[in-house]
Amino acid sequence: MNEKIPYKTYLEESELPKQWYNVRADMKNKPAPLLNPATLKPMTAEELSAVFCDELVKQELDDTTPYFDIPDEIREFYKMYRPSPLVRAYCLEKALDTPAHIYYKFEGNNTSGSHKLNSAIAQAYYAKKQGLKGVTTETGAGQWGTALSMACAYLGLDCRVYMVKCSYEQKPFRREVMRTYGASVTPSPSDTTNVGRKILAEHPGTTGSLGCAISEAVEAAVSTEGYRYVLGSVLSQVLLHQTVIGLESKTAFDKIGVKPDVIIGCAGGGSNLGGLVSPFVGEMLRGENNYRIIAVEPASCPSLTRGKYAYDFCDTGMVCPLAKMYTLGSGFIPSPNHAGGLRYHGMSSILSQLYDDKLIEAVSVEQTAVFAAAEKFARVEGILPAPESSHAIKVAIDEALKCKETGEAKNIFFGLTGTGYFDMYAYQAFNDGKMSDYIPTDEDLAVGFAGLPKVDL
Amino acid sequence: MNEKIPYKTYLEESELPKQWYNVRADMKNKPAPLLNPATLKPMTAEELSAVFCDELVKQELDDTTPYFDIPDEIREFYKMYRPSPLVRAYCLEKALDTPAHIYYKFEGNNTSGSHKLNSAIAQAYYAKKQGLKGVTTETGAGQWGTALSMACAYLGLDCRVYMVKCSYEQKPFRREVMRTYGASVTPSPSDTTNVGRKILAEHPGTTGSLGCAISEAVEAAVSTEGYRYVLGSVLSQVLLHQTVIGLESKTAFDKIGVKPDVIIGCAGGGSNLGGLVSPFVGEMLRGENNYRIIAVEPASCPSLTRGKYAYDFCDTGMVCPLAKMYTLGSGFIPSPNHAGGLRYHGMSSILSQLYDDKLIEAVSVEQTAVFAAAEKFARVEGILPAPESSHAIKVAIDEALKCKETGEAKNIFFGLTGTGYFDMYAYQAFNDGKMSDYIPTDEDLAVGFAGLPKVDL
Repeated sequence: MNEKIPYKTYLEESELPKQWYNVRADMKNKPAPLLNPATLKPMTAEELSAVFCDELVKQELDDTTPYFDIPDEIREFYKMYRPSPLVRAYCLEKALDTPAHIYYKFEGNNTSGSHKLNSAIAQAYYAKKQGLKGVTTETGAGQWGTALSMACAYLGLDCRVYMVKCSYEQKPFRREVMRTYGASVTPSPSDTTNVGRKILAEHPGTTGSLGCAISEAVEAAVSTEGYRYVLGSVLSQVLLHQTVIGLESKTAFDKIGVKPDVIIGCAGGGSNLGGLVSPFVGEMLRGENNYRIIAVEPASCPSLTRGKYAYDFCDTGMVCPLAKMYTLGSGFIPSPNHAGGLRYHGMSSILSQLYDDKLIEAVSVEQTAVFAAAEKFARVEGILPAPESSHAIKVAIDEALKCKETGEAKNIFFGLTGTGYFDMYAYQAFNDGKMSDYIPTDEDLAVGFAGLPKVDL
Repeated sequence: MNEKIPYKTYLEESELPKQWYNVRADMKNKPAPLLNPATLKPMTAEELSAVFCDELVKQELDDTTPYFDIPDEIREFYKMYRPSPLVRAYCLEKALDTPAHIYYKFEGNNTSGSHKLNSAIAQAYYAKKQGLKGVTTETGAGQWGTALSMACAYLGLDCRVYMVKCSYEQKPFRREVMRTYGASVTPSPSDTTNVGRKILAEHPGTTGSLGCAISEAVEAAVSTEGYRYVLGSVLSQVLLHQTVIGLESKTAFDKIGVKPDVIIGCAGGGSNLGGLVSPFVGEMLRGENNYRIIAVEPASCPSLTRGKYAYDFCDTGMVCPLAKMYTLGSGFIPSPNHAGGLRYHGMSSILSQLYDDKLIEAVSVEQTAVFAAAEKFARVEGILPAPESSHAIKVAIDEALKCKETGEAKNIFFGLTGTGYFDMYAYQAFNDGKMSDYIPTDEDLAVGFAGLPKVDL
């Protein structure tokens, strides 16, 4: 414990990034464009503007501008909870007895409990600037909905959240956080939209899905004057905003004179991983540096490791544009015993392309091993991690133990995206020995793949 | 927003206090000693050693040594979550349109969610150093139990928590956090102790109380080889450890060149308030400086504003020493509609004496006003506060609004002790308009006062 590197490296507020980094500008193979599901032609700005704010449409479509200024108002909001600390995990290193040096960027020190707030405030800001009355969105367990409700409360913007019904009923606490921030929360599927009514008619007992909630939120936005839809992951604009994580990390590493060798992040829709690794990938793309980058996904929802790289629907109701991505098919639903988040059927187009170009690796892990890693981490590092984040912890520990075998003092860096305070049902299942693993069979996956749209470009 | 003072002032790790401050050393009127309930003589170190660790007994009894070194091991643990930020509440100031400058010390950025961890690690450390196997304690809603389980997990010490039964059953999430950190959690009253069995026999349907859980935890400690009892508030040793809050605050204020005019803290047993204000009170006692200090308590449990300054039992089972304090009587139980913490019948002896000497003021506030203040704060400052902390927020806002009337640019400083993530039932009641206030009548209070012991010194 006598090293010079502190436990926590905080940047000064003046060192907060002034621009987001658009990794697409440095990619030779650009992510494939979003397609209009009716015409199979690339979505135009005008078409997208019916769903998204104008400024966000620009960000979504721009794959050549390397940096976007972060508006002052967003930077002021960031200052309430950023810069987030880069933590040296001395206690975890000691517990593992590894020569590796372990670092993590901790994004959980805000009430939303995760990195999601970084994009929520950006999207809410552009909606407000455009003079809109409000925004709609979907949320599963509620991380994204909480983040958006916080951002909207701050800006005085109406916030309508469609929350997957089973979460709405079984996990009332995030719902109450959203209500405390003034958001209206509707269990999905609901009778407030056409797509919701259709799904309810076809599947009366359904407890909902993320894809269905997306469809409802989009419909609510496009059919309500002065509203637009916002999304917490997958989209390129979201990854852009989340690069504040990676940019701060780079600055902090430079400050302490350390270069990470391995960079690890959990991957659901890709917002955290993309934001964390983009600046590092940028250096690789420009030939300036080299890193080993690992995306970690649940074995029960393995879009990168077992999915197909194809155009697919982003939502169940098929009202959204088609995206080319590693996907399990929009009809894929993780088995009911899957406890954490990271349950989206697809993956960010940017990350899909980087993975296809072999700039990043991917591994899948099973959830009991993930919770065991989470518990070990919590007991020595203090922080109770979100199940999502714990996927990265699991692989960081594995890498550190490999270093123990080889004697290498590698710098292992992972993204700790959030805290698990609202995931105690899952921890309880683990504590009670009632958590199980499930790896989908090839037959299970075939069902999702069968629903992939036929797109021949 | 163009001021030079940052949103968050973080000290360097090297600026973390190296000593705790013992305010009793500077008090002319010392707090009255703990009494043996059998002999009514002051408790000796030997008598206390049956219950508490030796080093903590020394700290408890020492009212002359002004500073105690913080052991390196505890400082290392502190570095995982400290120094905590001193925050300038720019957004709250703007929302209130007040000329006042509002600051808060935020203690919620750790998994226990509150300042309790500051003393938990100290008490667990001394237990470990003494070669003990484990510690016992009680917890109400679970803040203190969570903090202690984290500290014990870190040190490899067994942790047995008696949790008030109604909380154990109705609020399972904190229980699961404790279990994740390896603690055993027993609903109180239980059949594992004599006092628990006695209470169960007399009141079969009881859902427990904090005073009863204390009795059980003390009995479990003294009757188990290698165990001692630890307590999260009230005791002078706890206030000593918590001075890390006030000492860091002083250093941070000096750094930004600000002197607080008004210092506000919520008061239950007094651990947060005492730790926050001790260094400032010390300056007052030494005639170096002057501050206005306000203790805020719930109108439903008004020990300072409506209690008696008398010797009283610390627990229901009357197994603990007697303490002289402002008290409502150990038989006082807040009305069932009381939502937050701050429900202990008495108040720290140190704070009681300071209050009696008019060095600190006290006010009581009603809970619907507290939650309204909490919601306002959350929406503009981002952080969802604990109900306990929100008592201080309520009075800080009141003081800031007074400044608006008078045009004074006072520096208002309050302690934000923790986050409300595990208090969403209370927020739900508030969101649903189902929260009510209750101020005990003089007749209600008479019941508690009737149970005060007759101590004639």
